[in-house]
Amino acid sequence: MNSEPVNAYKNFKLTIEYDGGAYHGWQRQATEPTIQEEIEKALMTMAGVKVVLTGSGRTDAGVHAYGQVANFLCETTLTHDVFQRGLNSLLPRDIIITACAEVPETFNARYDVKSKTYHYKILNRGLCAAIGRQYSWHIPQKLDLSAMRRACGHIIGTHDFKAFEGTGSPRTHTTRRVIHADLVKDNDGYLIFEIEGEGFLRFMVRNIVGTLVDVGLAKSTPEDFKRIMLSKDRNLAGITAPPCGLYLMQVNY
Amino acid sequence: MNSEPVNAYKNFKLTIEYDGGAYHGWQRQATEPTIQEEIEKALMTMAGVKVVLTGSGRTDAGVHAYGQVANFLCETTLTHDVFQRGLNSLLPRDIIITACAEVPETFNARYDVKSKTYHYKILNRGLCAAIGRQYSWHIPQKLDLSAMRRACGHIIGTHDFKAFEGTGSPRTHTTRRVIHADLVKDNDGYLIFEIEGEGFLRFMVRNIVGTLVDVGLAKSTPEDFKRIMLSKDRNLAGITAPPCGLYLMQVNY
Repeated sequence: MNSEPVNAYKNFKLTIEYDGGAYHGWQRQATEPTIQEEIEKALMTMAGVKVVLTGSGRTDAGVHAYGQVANFLCETTLTHDVFQRGLNSLLPRDIIITACAEVPETFNARYDVKSKTYHYKILNRGLCAAIGRQYSWHIPQKLDLSAMRRACGHIIGTHDFKAFEGTGSPRTHTTRRVIHADLVKDNDGYLIFEIEGEGFLRFMVRNIVGTLVDVGLAKSTPEDFKRIMLSKDRNLAGITAPPCGLYLMQVNY
Repeated sequence: MNSEPVNAYKNFKLTIEYDGGAYHGWQRQATEPTIQEEIEKALMTMAGVKVVLTGSGRTDAGVHAYGQVANFLCETTLTHDVFQRGLNSLLPRDIIITACAEVPETFNARYDVKSKTYHYKILNRGLCAAIGRQYSWHIPQKLDLSAMRRACGHIIGTHDFKAFEGTGSPRTHTTRRVIHADLVKDNDGYLIFEIEGEGFLRFMVRNIVGTLVDVGLAKSTPEDFKRIMLSKDRNLAGITAPPCGLYLMQVNY
Protein backbone atom coordinates (compact mmCIF):
# COMPACT_ATOMS: atom_id res chain seq x y z
CA MET A 1 0.00 0.00 0.00
CA ASN A 2 1.22 3.47 -0.92
CA SER A 3 0.92 6.28 1.56
CA GLU A 4 -0.99 9.36 0.47
CA PRO A 5 1.13 11.60 -1.80
CA VAL A 6 2.50 14.65 0.01
CA ASN A 7 0.54 17.74 -0.96
CA ALA A 8 3.08 19.93 -2.73
CA TYR A 9 0.80 22.97 -3.00
CA LYS A 10 2.28 26.21 -1.79
CA ASN A 11 0.33 29.34 -0.93
CA PHE A 12 1.86 32.67 -1.95
CA LYS A 13 0.83 36.13 -0.75
CA LEU A 14 1.52 39.01 -3.14
CA THR A 15 1.61 42.69 -2.24
CA ILE A 16 0.96 44.76 -5.34
CA GLU A 17 1.44 48.39 -6.37
CA TYR A 18 -0.36 49.53 -9.50
CA ASP A 19 -1.20 52.59 -11.50
CA GLY A 20 -4.84 51.88 -12.30
CA GLY A 21 -5.07 54.48 -15.08
CA ALA A 22 -4.91 51.96 -17.93
CA TYR A 23 -7.08 49.24 -16.35
CA HIS A 24 -10.74 48.45 -15.85
CA GLY A 25 -10.12 47.73 -12.20
CA TRP A 26 -8.79 44.72 -10.37
CA GLN A 27 -11.22 41.97 -11.30
CA ARG A 28 -10.89 39.83 -14.42
CA GLN A 29 -13.42 40.69 -17.17
CA ALA A 30 -14.31 39.22 -20.51
CA THR A 31 -12.96 41.96 -22.75
CA GLU A 32 -11.24 44.78 -20.87
CA PRO A 33 -7.70 44.67 -19.38
CA THR A 34 -7.59 44.26 -15.61
CA ILE A 35 -4.85 43.94 -12.99
CA GLN A 36 -5.92 40.44 -11.96
CA GLU A 37 -5.78 39.24 -15.56
CA GLU A 38 -2.30 40.68 -16.14
CA ILE A 39 -0.90 38.96 -13.05
CA GLU A 40 -2.67 35.68 -13.82
CA LYS A 41 -1.21 35.71 -17.34
CA ALA A 42 2.28 36.24 -15.93
CA LEU A 43 1.73 33.47 -13.34
CA MET A 44 0.61 31.10 -16.09
CA THR A 45 3.84 31.84 -17.97
CA MET A 46 5.88 31.10 -14.85
CA ALA A 47 4.00 28.14 -13.41
CA GLY A 48 2.96 26.54 -16.70
CA VAL A 49 -0.58 25.97 -15.43
CA LYS A 50 -3.62 28.18 -14.93
CA VAL A 51 -3.36 29.92 -11.56
CA VAL A 52 -6.30 31.71 -9.95
CA LEU A 53 -5.55 34.80 -7.92
CA THR A 54 -7.70 35.68 -4.88
CA GLY A 55 -7.60 39.44 -4.32
CA SER A 56 -8.41 41.17 -1.01
CA GLY A 57 -11.28 42.77 -2.91
CA ARG A 58 -11.96 44.68 -6.09
CA THR A 59 -10.70 48.09 -6.94
CA ASP A 60 -12.70 49.97 -9.56
CA ALA A 61 -11.56 51.16 -12.98
CA GLY A 62 -8.87 53.83 -12.70
CA VAL A 63 -8.22 53.35 -8.96
CA HIS A 64 -4.58 52.94 -7.86
CA ALA A 65 -2.98 50.74 -5.20
CA TYR A 66 0.21 50.86 -3.18
CA GLY A 67 -0.72 47.81 -1.13
CA GLN A 68 -3.28 45.54 -2.79
CA VAL A 69 -2.92 41.95 -1.53
CA ALA A 70 -3.72 38.69 -3.30
CA ASN A 71 -2.86 35.04 -2.82
CA PHE A 72 -2.62 31.98 -5.05
CA LEU A 73 -2.15 28.27 -4.51
CA CYS A 74 0.27 26.55 -6.83
CA GLU A 75 1.94 23.14 -7.02
CA THR A 76 5.46 24.33 -7.76
CA THR A 77 9.11 24.11 -6.82
CA LEU A 78 9.53 27.85 -7.45
CA THR A 79 10.26 29.97 -4.39
CA HIS A 80 8.70 33.28 -3.33
CA ASP A 81 11.68 35.36 -4.48
CA VAL A 82 11.73 33.65 -7.88
CA PHE A 83 8.03 34.46 -8.26
CA GLN A 84 8.59 38.09 -7.29
CA ARG A 85 11.50 38.65 -9.69
CA GLY A 86 9.84 36.68 -12.49
CA LEU A 87 6.50 38.47 -12.19
CA ASN A 88 8.18 41.87 -12.12
CA SER A 89 10.07 41.05 -15.30
CA LEU A 90 6.91 39.79 -17.05
CA LEU A 91 4.37 42.37 -15.86
CA PRO A 92 3.72 45.70 -17.57
CA ARG A 93 5.54 48.61 -15.90
CA ASP A 94 2.38 49.94 -14.24
CA ILE A 95 2.06 46.83 -12.03
CA ILE A 96 4.77 45.92 -9.51
CA ILE A 97 4.92 43.06 -7.02
CA THR A 98 6.38 44.83 -3.99
CA ALA A 99 6.46 41.67 -1.83
CA CYS A 100 5.93 37.94 -2.24
CA ALA A 101 5.88 35.55 0.70
CA GLU A 102 5.01 31.90 1.20
CA VAL A 103 2.20 31.71 3.74
CA PRO A 104 0.23 28.91 5.49
CA GLU A 105 -2.18 27.12 3.16
CA THR A 106 -5.12 28.45 5.16
CA PHE A 107 -4.37 32.12 4.34
CA ASN A 108 -7.06 33.67 2.13
CA ALA A 109 -6.47 37.24 0.92
CA ARG A 110 -10.20 37.91 0.72
CA TYR A 111 -11.70 36.25 3.80
CA ASP A 112 -8.89 37.03 6.26
CA VAL A 113 -8.97 40.81 5.79
CA LYS A 114 -9.17 42.63 9.15
CA SER A 115 -9.19 46.14 7.73
CA LYS A 116 -8.19 48.22 4.72
CA THR A 117 -6.74 51.70 4.46
CA TYR A 118 -7.55 53.97 1.52
CA HIS A 119 -6.22 57.43 0.73
CA TYR A 120 -7.97 59.94 -1.50
CA LYS A 121 -5.75 62.71 -2.92
CA ILE A 122 -7.10 66.20 -3.70
CA LEU A 123 -5.21 69.08 -5.31
CA ASN A 124 -6.85 72.18 -3.84
CA ARG A 125 -5.51 75.25 -5.62
CA GLY A 126 -6.62 77.48 -8.48
CA LEU A 127 -4.49 75.89 -11.17
CA CYS A 128 -4.55 72.21 -11.98
CA ALA A 129 -1.28 70.33 -12.36
CA ALA A 130 0.23 69.28 -15.70
CA ILE A 131 2.74 66.92 -14.09
CA GLY A 132 0.97 64.22 -12.06
CA ARG A 133 -2.52 65.38 -13.11
CA GLN A 134 -3.59 61.72 -13.41
CA TYR A 135 -3.05 61.06 -9.70
CA SER A 136 -5.44 63.41 -7.88
CA TRP A 137 -8.77 65.24 -8.06
CA HIS A 138 -8.38 68.94 -8.76
CA ILE A 139 -10.73 71.26 -6.84
CA PRO A 140 -10.00 74.91 -7.78
CA GLN A 141 -12.23 76.56 -5.15
CA LYS A 142 -10.80 76.96 -1.64
CA LEU A 143 -12.02 74.14 0.64
CA ASP A 144 -12.94 74.68 4.30
CA LEU A 145 -10.74 71.97 5.83
CA SER A 146 -11.95 72.48 9.35
CA ALA A 147 -15.58 71.86 8.31
CA MET A 148 -14.50 68.80 6.33
CA ARG A 149 -12.61 67.44 9.36
CA ARG A 150 -15.70 67.88 11.53
CA ALA A 151 -17.72 65.91 8.97
CA CYS A 152 -15.01 63.18 9.00
CA GLY A 153 -15.72 62.69 12.69
CA HIS A 154 -19.26 61.52 11.88
CA ILE A 155 -17.96 58.65 9.75
CA ILE A 156 -15.96 56.95 12.49
CA GLY A 157 -17.71 54.01 14.15
CA THR A 158 -20.26 51.45 13.00
CA HIS A 159 -22.91 52.92 10.70
CA ASP A 160 -25.25 52.01 7.89
CA PHE A 161 -23.43 53.56 4.91
CA LYS A 162 -26.23 52.93 2.40
CA ALA A 163 -26.30 56.65 1.45
CA PHE A 164 -22.73 56.27 0.18
CA GLU A 165 -23.19 53.01 -1.69
CA GLY A 166 -22.90 52.64 -5.45
CA THR A 167 -25.29 50.35 -7.25
CA GLY A 168 -24.56 46.91 -8.59
CA SER A 169 -22.48 45.41 -5.83
CA PRO A 170 -23.38 42.13 -4.12
CA ARG A 171 -23.67 42.55 -0.33
CA THR A 172 -25.88 41.17 2.42
CA HIS A 173 -26.08 44.38 4.42
CA THR A 174 -24.81 47.97 4.30
CA THR A 175 -23.47 48.41 7.82
CA ARG A 176 -19.69 48.86 8.04
CA ARG A 177 -17.24 49.80 10.80
CA VAL A 178 -14.87 52.70 10.12
CA ILE A 179 -11.85 52.75 12.44
CA HIS A 180 -10.20 55.96 11.32
CA ALA A 181 -11.10 58.91 9.08
CA ASP A 182 -9.19 62.16 8.79
CA LEU A 183 -8.04 64.83 6.37
CA VAL A 184 -4.34 65.74 6.33
CA LYS A 185 -1.92 67.68 4.11
CA ASP A 186 1.02 65.80 2.63
CA ASN A 187 4.56 67.10 2.01
CA ASP A 188 3.65 68.30 -1.47
CA GLY A 189 0.59 70.29 -0.38
CA TYR A 190 -2.02 67.75 -1.50
CA LEU A 191 -5.01 67.09 0.75
CA ILE A 192 -5.22 63.45 1.74
CA PHE A 193 -8.47 61.94 3.01
CA GLU A 194 -7.44 58.86 5.00
CA ILE A 195 -9.92 56.16 5.89
CA GLU A 196 -9.45 52.77 7.54
CA GLY A 197 -12.39 50.40 7.82
CA GLU A 198 -13.19 46.75 8.32
CA GLY A 199 -15.00 46.73 5.01
CA PHE A 200 -16.27 49.08 2.34
CA LEU A 201 -19.31 49.20 0.11
CA ARG A 202 -18.87 49.77 -3.60
CA PHE A 203 -17.90 53.43 -4.33
CA MET A 204 -18.22 54.15 -0.59
CA VAL A 205 -14.91 56.04 -0.26
CA ARG A 206 -15.45 58.06 -3.44
CA ASN A 207 -19.04 58.90 -2.47
CA ILE A 208 -17.92 59.99 1.00
CA VAL A 209 -15.23 62.18 -0.61
CA GLY A 210 -17.74 63.76 -3.01
CA THR A 211 -20.03 64.54 -0.07
CA LEU A 212 -17.13 65.86 2.06
CA VAL A 213 -16.13 68.20 -0.77
CA ASP A 214 -19.68 69.63 -0.72
CA VAL A 215 -19.04 70.44 2.96
CA GLY A 216 -15.65 71.97 2.05
CA LEU A 217 -17.39 74.18 -0.55
CA ALA A 218 -20.04 75.23 2.03
CA LYS A 219 -22.81 73.65 -0.07
CA SER A 220 -23.64 71.75 3.11
CA THR A 221 -22.57 71.69 6.75
CA PRO A 222 -20.90 68.94 8.80
CA GLU A 223 -24.34 68.41 10.40
CA ASP A 224 -25.91 68.02 6.94
CA PHE A 225 -23.23 65.42 6.25
CA LYS A 226 -24.34 63.46 9.30
CA ARG A 227 -28.00 63.76 8.29
CA ILE A 228 -27.19 62.53 4.77
CA MET A 229 -25.39 59.53 6.23
CA LEU A 230 -28.27 58.70 8.57
CA SER A 231 -30.86 59.14 5.77
CA LYS A 232 -29.50 56.07 3.89
CA ASP A 233 -30.54 57.95 0.74
CA ARG A 234 -27.90 57.96 -2.01
CA ASN A 235 -29.74 60.82 -3.76
CA LEU A 236 -28.88 63.20 -0.91
CA ALA A 237 -25.14 62.47 -1.03
CA GLY A 238 -22.60 64.24 -3.25
CA ILE A 239 -21.07 63.08 -6.50
CA THR A 240 -18.79 60.08 -6.80
CA ALA A 241 -15.28 61.52 -6.69
CA PRO A 242 -13.21 60.52 -9.74
CA PRO A 243 -11.24 57.26 -9.45
CA CYS A 244 -7.82 58.79 -10.26
CA GLY A 245 -7.52 60.23 -6.72
CA LEU A 246 -8.15 56.94 -4.88
CA TYR A 247 -5.39 54.66 -3.56
CA LEU A 248 -5.71 51.33 -1.75
CA MET A 249 -2.82 51.87 0.65
CA GLN A 250 -2.81 48.78 2.85
CA VAL A 251 -4.71 45.61 3.64
CA ASN A 252 -4.40 44.45 7.23
CA TYR A 253 -4.68 40.77 8.24
CA MET B 1 -1.34 115.85 -40.82
CA ASN B 2 -1.95 112.69 -38.84
CA SER B 3 0.33 111.69 -36.02
CA GLU B 4 1.92 108.25 -36.18
CA PRO B 5 -0.53 105.52 -35.14
CA VAL B 6 0.08 104.31 -31.61
CA ASN B 7 1.78 100.92 -31.66
CA ALA B 8 -0.81 98.60 -30.11
CA TYR B 9 1.52 95.62 -29.81
CA LYS B 10 1.69 94.06 -26.38
CA ASN B 11 4.38 91.69 -25.14
CA PHE B 12 3.26 88.79 -22.96
CA LYS B 13 5.46 86.54 -20.81
CA LEU B 14 4.15 83.02 -20.17
CA THR B 15 5.33 80.66 -17.45
CA ILE B 16 4.53 77.10 -18.42
CA GLU B 17 4.30 73.74 -16.66
CA TYR B 18 4.23 70.64 -18.86
CA ASP B 19 4.42 66.90 -18.73
CA GLY B 20 6.76 66.25 -21.65
CA GLY B 21 5.90 62.56 -21.91
CA ALA B 22 3.67 62.91 -24.97
CA TYR B 23 5.75 65.52 -26.83
CA HIS B 24 8.81 65.67 -29.04
CA GLY B 25 10.21 68.50 -26.97
CA TRP B 26 9.56 72.21 -26.87
CA GLN B 27 10.43 73.33 -30.39
CA ARG B 28 7.98 73.29 -33.28
CA GLN B 29 8.65 70.49 -35.81
CA ALA B 30 7.22 69.53 -39.16
CA THR B 31 5.43 66.35 -38.13
CA GLU B 32 5.65 65.57 -34.41
CA PRO B 33 3.62 67.23 -31.63
CA THR B 34 5.57 69.78 -29.57
CA ILE B 35 4.76 72.12 -26.68
CA GLN B 36 5.48 75.27 -28.70
CA GLU B 37 3.11 74.14 -31.45
CA GLU B 38 0.28 73.39 -29.01
CA ILE B 39 0.54 76.82 -27.40
CA GLU B 40 0.86 78.62 -30.75
CA LYS B 41 -2.28 76.83 -32.00
CA ALA B 42 -4.18 77.96 -28.90
CA LEU B 43 -2.86 81.52 -29.28
CA MET B 44 -3.98 81.56 -32.92
CA THR B 45 -7.48 80.56 -31.80
CA MET B 46 -7.54 83.38 -29.24
CA ALA B 47 -5.81 86.16 -31.16
CA GLY B 48 -7.15 85.31 -34.61
CA VAL B 49 -3.70 85.74 -36.18
CA LYS B 50 -0.53 83.67 -36.29
CA VAL B 51 1.51 84.30 -33.15
CA VAL B 52 5.14 83.22 -32.81
CA LEU B 53 6.31 82.13 -29.39
CA THR B 54 9.90 82.73 -28.28
CA GLY B 55 10.91 80.13 -25.70
CA SER B 56 13.76 80.51 -23.20
CA GLY B 57 15.33 77.56 -24.99
CA ARG B 58 14.47 74.06 -26.14
CA THR B 59 13.69 71.14 -23.96
CA ASP B 60 14.22 67.73 -25.53
CA ALA B 61 11.62 65.05 -26.23
CA GLY B 62 10.16 63.65 -23.01
CA VAL B 63 11.63 66.33 -20.72
CA HIS B 64 9.24 68.03 -18.27
CA ALA B 65 9.00 71.65 -17.08
CA TYR B 66 7.59 73.39 -14.03
CA GLY B 67 8.88 76.79 -15.11
CA GLN B 68 9.54 77.09 -18.84
CA VAL B 69 9.21 80.72 -19.99
CA ALA B 70 8.21 82.10 -23.38
CA ASN B 71 7.05 85.44 -24.74
CA PHE B 72 4.97 86.62 -27.69
CA LEU B 73 4.15 89.95 -29.27
CA CYS B 74 0.55 90.47 -30.29
CA GLU B 75 -1.60 93.37 -31.46
CA THR B 76 -4.59 92.73 -29.25
CA THR B 77 -7.03 94.19 -26.77
CA LEU B 78 -6.96 90.98 -24.72
CA THR B 79 -5.41 91.22 -21.28
CA HIS B 80 -2.88 88.91 -19.60
CA ASP B 81 -5.50 87.21 -17.39
CA VAL B 82 -7.80 86.60 -20.36
CA PHE B 83 -4.88 84.98 -22.18
CA GLN B 84 -4.04 82.78 -19.18
CA ARG B 85 -7.61 81.57 -18.66
CA GLY B 86 -8.24 81.15 -22.39
CA LEU B 87 -5.03 79.23 -23.03
CA ASN B 88 -5.67 76.93 -20.07
CA SER B 89 -9.12 76.12 -21.37
CA LEU B 90 -7.82 75.45 -24.91
CA LEU B 91 -4.58 73.57 -24.13
CA PRO B 92 -4.35 69.82 -23.56
CA ARG B 93 -4.29 68.87 -19.89
CA ASP B 94 -0.54 68.14 -19.88
CA ILE B 95 0.31 71.80 -20.57
CA ILE B 96 -0.63 74.56 -18.08
CA ILE B 97 0.05 78.28 -18.19
CA THR B 98 0.96 78.94 -14.55
CA ALA B 99 1.45 82.69 -15.08
CA CYS B 100 0.90 85.28 -17.79
CA ALA B 101 2.11 88.88 -17.46
CA GLU B 102 2.33 91.87 -19.79
CA VAL B 103 5.98 92.90 -19.96
CA PRO B 104 7.97 95.70 -21.68
CA GLU B 105 8.22 95.30 -25.44
CA THR B 106 11.99 94.79 -25.14
CA PHE B 107 11.67 91.59 -23.06
CA ASN B 108 12.91 88.53 -24.96
CA ALA B 109 12.49 85.14 -23.28
CA ARG B 110 15.52 83.73 -25.07
CA TYR B 111 18.11 86.50 -25.06
CA ASP B 112 17.38 87.90 -21.59
CA VAL B 113 17.96 84.63 -19.70
CA LYS B 114 20.36 85.12 -16.78
CA SER B 115 20.30 81.49 -15.59
CA LYS B 116 18.24 78.32 -15.60
CA THR B 117 17.64 75.72 -12.92
CA TYR B 118 17.09 72.06 -13.78
CA HIS B 119 16.29 69.15 -11.49
CA TYR B 120 16.95 65.53 -12.33
CA LYS B 121 14.93 62.97 -10.32
CA ILE B 122 16.29 59.49 -9.51
CA LEU B 123 14.46 56.67 -7.73
CA ASN B 124 17.24 54.75 -5.97
CA ARG B 125 15.79 51.57 -4.48
CA GLY B 126 15.56 47.93 -5.50
CA LEU B 127 12.02 48.07 -6.82
CA CYS B 128 10.84 50.48 -9.45
CA ALA B 129 7.61 52.42 -8.95
CA ALA B 130 4.33 51.62 -10.69
CA ILE B 131 2.74 54.93 -9.69
CA GLY B 132 4.73 57.86 -11.07
CA ARG B 133 7.20 55.63 -12.96
CA GLN B 134 7.13 58.12 -15.89
CA TYR B 135 8.64 60.90 -13.77
CA SER B 136 12.06 59.60 -12.67
CA TRP B 137 15.00 57.38 -13.57
CA HIS B 138 15.04 54.13 -11.60
CA ILE B 139 18.49 52.95 -10.45
CA PRO B 140 18.12 49.69 -8.47
CA GLN B 141 21.72 49.44 -7.20
CA LYS B 142 22.62 51.46 -4.10
CA LEU B 143 24.29 54.75 -5.07
CA ASP B 144 27.19 56.26 -3.11
CA LEU B 145 25.73 59.73 -2.56
CA SER B 146 28.77 61.12 -0.85
CA ALA B 147 30.98 60.26 -3.85
CA MET B 148 28.37 61.74 -6.21
CA ARG B 149 28.28 64.95 -4.15
CA ARG B 150 32.07 65.25 -4.34
CA ALA B 151 31.85 64.88 -8.12
CA CYS B 152 29.14 67.61 -8.18
CA GLY B 153 31.68 69.98 -6.68
CA HIS B 154 33.83 69.73 -9.81
CA ILE B 155 31.01 71.00 -12.02
CA ILE B 156 30.60 74.35 -10.28
CA GLY B 157 32.32 77.27 -11.98
CA THR B 158 33.22 78.09 -15.58
CA HIS B 159 34.35 75.05 -17.55
CA ASP B 160 34.49 73.67 -21.04
CA PHE B 161 31.65 71.08 -20.89
CA LYS B 162 32.39 69.55 -24.32
CA ALA B 163 32.68 66.07 -22.74
CA PHE B 164 29.00 66.36 -21.71
CA GLU B 165 27.66 67.75 -24.98
CA GLY B 166 25.24 65.93 -27.25
CA THR B 167 25.72 66.20 -30.99
CA GLY B 168 23.67 68.28 -33.39
CA SER B 169 23.23 71.50 -31.45
CA PRO B 170 24.23 74.90 -32.83
CA ARG B 171 26.70 76.69 -30.51
CA THR B 172 29.73 78.93 -30.94
CA HIS B 173 31.69 77.51 -27.99
CA THR B 174 31.28 74.86 -25.28
CA THR B 175 32.29 76.83 -22.19
CA ARG B 176 29.48 77.38 -19.70
CA ARG B 177 29.23 78.73 -16.14
CA VAL B 178 27.53 76.55 -13.53
CA ILE B 179 26.41 78.48 -10.45
CA HIS B 180 25.11 75.63 -8.30
CA ALA B 181 25.19 71.82 -8.43
CA ASP B 182 24.14 69.48 -5.64
CA LEU B 183 22.41 66.23 -4.87
CA VAL B 184 19.60 66.23 -2.29
CA LYS B 185 16.81 63.93 -1.12
CA ASP B 186 13.24 65.14 -1.45
CA ASN B 187 10.32 64.49 0.91
CA ASP B 188 9.34 61.33 -0.95
CA GLY B 189 12.80 59.77 -0.87
CA TYR B 190 13.75 60.59 -4.46
CA LEU B 191 17.28 61.81 -5.18
CA ILE B 192 17.28 65.20 -6.85
CA PHE B 193 20.28 66.47 -8.77
CA GLU B 194 19.95 70.26 -8.81
CA ILE B 195 21.89 72.40 -11.25
CA GLU B 196 21.74 76.11 -11.99
CA GLY B 197 23.79 77.54 -14.84
CA GLU B 198 23.98 80.55 -17.13
CA GLY B 199 23.56 78.26 -20.09
CA PHE B 200 23.57 74.61 -21.02
CA LEU B 201 24.78 72.59 -23.96
CA ARG B 202 22.46 70.09 -25.58
CA PHE B 203 22.02 66.97 -23.35
CA MET B 204 24.50 68.51 -20.88
CA VAL B 205 22.43 67.88 -17.75
CA ARG B 206 21.49 64.33 -18.76
CA ASN B 207 25.09 63.50 -19.70
CA ILE B 208 26.35 64.89 -16.38
CA VAL B 209 23.73 62.77 -14.56
CA GLY B 210 24.73 59.62 -16.48
CA THR B 211 28.38 60.24 -15.55
CA LEU B 212 27.50 61.04 -11.90
CA VAL B 213 25.59 57.76 -11.67
CA ASP B 214 28.76 55.92 -12.78
CA VAL B 215 30.47 57.55 -9.78
CA GLY B 216 27.56 56.52 -7.55
CA LEU B 217 27.94 52.92 -8.76
CA ALA B 218 31.72 53.04 -8.11
CA LYS B 219 32.44 52.50 -11.81
CA SER B 220 34.51 55.65 -11.50
CA THR B 221 35.68 58.04 -8.77
CA PRO B 222 34.93 61.75 -8.23
CA GLU B 223 38.47 62.39 -9.52
CA ASP B 224 37.72 60.36 -12.66
CA PHE B 225 34.65 62.56 -13.09
CA LYS B 226 36.85 65.65 -13.05
CA ARG B 227 39.29 64.06 -15.51
CA ILE B 228 36.41 63.16 -17.86
CA MET B 229 35.16 66.76 -17.76
CA LEU B 230 38.63 68.17 -18.46
CA SER B 231 39.24 65.66 -21.30
CA LYS B 232 36.46 67.26 -23.43
CA ASP B 233 35.94 63.74 -24.78
CA ARG B 234 32.28 62.68 -24.94
CA ASN B 235 33.35 59.04 -25.33
CA LEU B 236 34.74 58.99 -21.78
CA ALA B 237 31.52 60.26 -20.17
CA GLY B 238 28.59 58.10 -19.04
CA ILE B 239 25.31 57.43 -20.80
CA THR B 240 22.71 60.11 -21.45
CA ALA B 241 20.24 59.76 -18.56
CA PRO B 242 16.65 59.21 -19.79
CA PRO B 243 14.57 62.35 -20.42
CA CYS B 244 11.69 61.37 -18.09
CA GLY B 245 13.74 62.36 -14.99
CA LEU B 246 14.59 65.88 -16.19
CA TYR B 247 12.65 69.02 -15.18
CA LEU B 248 13.25 72.63 -16.23
CA MET B 249 12.37 74.19 -12.89
CA GLN B 250 12.96 77.91 -13.37
CA VAL B 251 14.31 80.47 -15.81
CA ASN B 252 15.82 83.53 -14.19
CA TYR B 253 15.87 86.95 -15.90
